[in-house]
Amino acid sequence: MRLTSYTDFSLRVLIYLALNPDRRPTIAEIADRYAISRTHLMKVVHQLGVAGYIETVRGKNGGLKLARDIETLTVGEVVRRTEPDLHLVSCFEVAAAPGCVIAPACRLKGKLHEARAAFLRVLDDCTLAEVVGNRDALSTLLAS
Amino acid sequence: MRLTSYTDFSLRVLIYLALNPDRRPTIAEIADRYAISRTHLMKVVHQLGVAGYIETVRGKNGGLKLARDIETLTVGEVVRRTEPDLHLVSCFEVAAAPGCVIAPACRLKGKLHEARAAFLRVLDDCTLAEVVGNRDALSTLLAS
Repeated sequence: MRLTSYTDFSLRVLIYLALNPDRRPTIAEIADRYAISRTHLMKVVHQLGVAGYIETVRGKNGGLKLARDIETLTVGEVVRRTEPDLHLVSCFEVAAAPGCVIAPACRLKGKLHEARAAFLRVLDDCTLAEVVGNRDALSTLLAS
Repeated sequence: MRLTSYTDFSLRVLIYLALNPDRRPTIAEIADRYAISRTHLMKVVHQLGVAGYIETVRGKNGGLKLARDIETLTVGEVVRRTEPDLHLVSCFEVAAAPGCVIAPACRLKGKLHEARAAFLRVLDDCTLAEVVGNRDALSTLLAS
């Protein structure tokens, strides 16, 4: 049970931009600070733009900026959007093939649904503002 | 975010055995009823034996039986045991490489820990007995 690195990196980009609201950080800068692949980050940034979470500002002092209010953007919303597969088991899929014969009466399936809901509820209650609440500590680490 | 088919099949085997406490089903029978790979199931059954959840009865009328009380064996316990990786993101690992620079102060990490705990809590509260509470409906599906 793991989130994809795509989700991981998406959240890191949003955190970075939330910590730097008065600048327009570039992909190169963010990749450098987190020591992650620039190529990978380009794809992540593109999708964050498509999702309406960030904007790309063109020009000489261009770069990235958040397009959403950090007080209302939640980790849950981002994870639901970026995680390609929140189907814990194959029977969660509408057209699961091959299907599990007991699926129509399976209480385990219901419990797993309940567990996933509990997981997402915690993240839905957490805004980006809350995540960067310790702004100074995070900025210091990113500058080191 | 997906559980492995290994965890999925482990839970199915336990459900099957819980539904058939007076018989000693074989791997071939269980694989056949769920229409899953017998080879894959052999590995699953071996590990369930190592974990002390099931026993293999040898001899002419041999087969598998539960080694734990279904009233106390929880889905959470099984998932913790069978799921190889409950580290949602790389920074959950003790020796994550490459580590994330903001990990020492990251509140997101704490929230993801909290979300995982909420997920597992639901499964810890669910016994195998509860899962097979609708015994007749499940047995009918497995016999069809």
